[in-house]
Amino acid sequence: MATITHVSPLAPEAFPDLPAIGGVRFATAAAGVKYQDRPDVMLAVLDPGSAVAGVFTRSSTRAAPVLDCQAKIGGASDGPAAILVNSGNANAFTGHYGQSSVAAVTQAVAEATSVPVSRVFTSSTGVIGERLPHERIVARLSDLAAGLSAGAIGDAARAIMTTDTFPKGASREVTVGGKTVRIAGIAKGSGMIAPDMATMLAYIFTDAAIEQSKLQEMLGALSDRTFNCITVDSDTSTSDSVLVCATGAAGVDATDDPAFREALEAVMRDLAQQVVRDGEGASKFVEIRVTGAVSDAEARVHGRAIANSPLVKTAIAGEDPNWGRIVMAIGKSGATADRDRLSISFGDIPVAEKGWVSPDYSEDAAAAYMKRPELVISVDLGLGEGRATVWTCDLTHGYIRINADYRS
Amino acid sequence: MATITHVSPLAPEAFPDLPAIGGVRFATAAAGVKYQDRPDVMLAVLDPGSAVAGVFTRSSTRAAPVLDCQAKIGGASDGPAAILVNSGNANAFTGHYGQSSVAAVTQAVAEATSVPVSRVFTSSTGVIGERLPHERIVARLSDLAAGLSAGAIGDAARAIMTTDTFPKGASREVTVGGKTVRIAGIAKGSGMIAPDMATMLAYIFTDAAIEQSKLQEMLGALSDRTFNCITVDSDTSTSDSVLVCATGAAGVDATDDPAFREALEAVMRDLAQQVVRDGEGASKFVEIRVTGAVSDAEARVHGRAIANSPLVKTAIAGEDPNWGRIVMAIGKSGATADRDRLSISFGDIPVAEKGWVSPDYSEDAAAAYMKRPELVISVDLGLGEGRATVWTCDLTHGYIRINADYRS
Repeated sequence: MATITHVSPLAPEAFPDLPAIGGVRFATAAAGVKYQDRPDVMLAVLDPGSAVAGVFTRSSTRAAPVLDCQAKIGGASDGPAAILVNSGNANAFTGHYGQSSVAAVTQAVAEATSVPVSRVFTSSTGVIGERLPHERIVARLSDLAAGLSAGAIGDAARAIMTTDTFPKGASREVTVGGKTVRIAGIAKGSGMIAPDMATMLAYIFTDAAIEQSKLQEMLGALSDRTFNCITVDSDTSTSDSVLVCATGAAGVDATDDPAFREALEAVMRDLAQQVVRDGEGASKFVEIRVTGAVSDAEARVHGRAIANSPLVKTAIAGEDPNWGRIVMAIGKSGATADRDRLSISFGDIPVAEKGWVSPDYSEDAAAAYMKRPELVISVDLGLGEGRATVWTCDLTHGYIRINADYRS
Repeated sequence: MATITHVSPLAPEAFPDLPAIGGVRFATAAAGVKYQDRPDVMLAVLDPGSAVAGVFTRSSTRAAPVLDCQAKIGGASDGPAAILVNSGNANAFTGHYGQSSVAAVTQAVAEATSVPVSRVFTSSTGVIGERLPHERIVARLSDLAAGLSAGAIGDAARAIMTTDTFPKGASREVTVGGKTVRIAGIAKGSGMIAPDMATMLAYIFTDAAIEQSKLQEMLGALSDRTFNCITVDSDTSTSDSVLVCATGAAGVDATDDPAFREALEAVMRDLAQQVVRDGEGASKFVEIRVTGAVSDAEARVHGRAIANSPLVKTAIAGEDPNWGRIVMAIGKSGATADRDRLSISFGDIPVAEKGWVSPDYSEDAAAAYMKRPELVISVDLGLGEGRATVWTCDLTHGYIRINADYRS
């Protein structure tokens, strides 16, 4: 795996000040799963009564921990719960050893934390196809359990990094029924990012009380507007997982509160965008707004076709307002388009309309706009009310360097 | 557009010696459509009685010449026919000017060659979204018509190049009913190559007689096994077109001859593979053989998911036997797969079987194999009889250089 020496130029200035969430504590350890001399395991323990919802990759080659989590989500939820994540090894495509490793780790977490094994959720992220040296994780569990603290969420964000160049966190506060409710989340992800069918690795915590089935429903719906709207390289991980945990420690039920839902969406969108900002080799952050499609689903198909096109991504890297490549991507997407109703803008600059270059188009203005680090590309299909926003980054020598120049 | 200074390392040693095909003559000219001081227009004129079949991109933003060809294919076919192709400008997304340019060019060809305008087929390849300066082409038509010759097919192959680093040609001879029948074809293509739904730019000629509707059927079926099985960068052109012309000059009907069909497929496969060998920045030619899928169609979906994955393509560029990325690509493809029945080989080296690394896997042997310029990756799904072969190339700094480092 490539050695990461530079922080992404699109990184936030600093890791945010995340609030402690009542009812959840964190610990990290350096288990030496693959990386040496850095924390590579995080443990989160949730108080009894916490609801846990999850969405996962739909890859047909998904990893053993994903299958284990999927089997457990939605089960009985009275007791406490725990989440254990290791970086450096994905425990994916590891045959029956994969299940054995998950069993060993979840059993050890259960023993160290007194959480029932049916409520221990694990994720593994890193190299595919190598046996997880789970004994190294098991060996650190009593230390992890002894070191749990409410304030260690930032350390947890660092422990789950792989090719990430910065840790990712986001939070919101919202008032529900006169009480303050907090939401804080962390995520990892940089390459193999195209959560087309589900999402990538993120953990979000709130002290609101939310009924589990409603939390699950909310997570699914909001993932479609956040994590499922990002792509770095069109490649979907075998380990994508997002867990949202509601501890209820704030003493207020936010199940049907619209302000809470909005705040949760904001945290999810913030984390999703941070993953794109850390896209392997990224030098530009690009928002693609598609309107006027036949349906929201078709708008998303067009948005993803543009966002995943190597020719669009390299044109952006080259600061080239090559809108012909956007026309090409719309044309190949498979979703409905009428060449002669299509209009395209870069920022506020009209580029194309009604099947040809806009009469107001200025190549100089467009070329100047493309030099910005953050770009908005708007496409109106002129056909209906369908809309979607997709976030992506450019394709640069940095991506090739990270993924081709070094043996993993 | 990038200046191409190096011929692809995967290019054939020399342009092949293509036989003259009775009933068809070629001419080329330097019209200065965009490139200066090189031939950029080719004209082919076919004798009366020639059958012309065509398949075209299904892009919803396809170019004006494509729409014109589609309207004409399958029409009355007693008179002569003509094909005119320009490079440097795709006449795509050019609004009503696009149709006007096609009308002007086809009318001028008809006048210069005495071919009815309903039998004049045109293609344009190059930049998207700029008005075609068709008057420059029209100005060269009387010279073109005067210069037609049976032996100029190699010049024609050169005139249609854009980012291609070498001209592409292929031929076969086959005996039908005791007579020798010849097939010769030319193609262009290097980037924006993912003829998922149709194909790219190629022109194939035979002196056999073939009934038009049967020729069309044959072209469609064989495209699915040749041009539709290649991908350079997953991006589908707005101009993809393949025409096959049967002049009948050999005096023998090959409509239902299996040897002819096989020879035509061989020419098409050869041209398709040459396009991959000239993939922008390509350093490796990769054949992906998928077997054991639920259906041939699903095998092709898996093959394309592997061939289009940026992480697989960069691993190949890095000579890294990173089979985990192949597992990932199969997982995300959307086609049926069972992780625990999957097996993967690199050449003759077993890599993975039954959901985990093969017991015979040798990382050293695999790493040595990956250093070859031509690779075979075999995937068996273990589910059924479906099979497909897909040809692709790697993703290198060269691709980024061609598409990002220069303004087009």
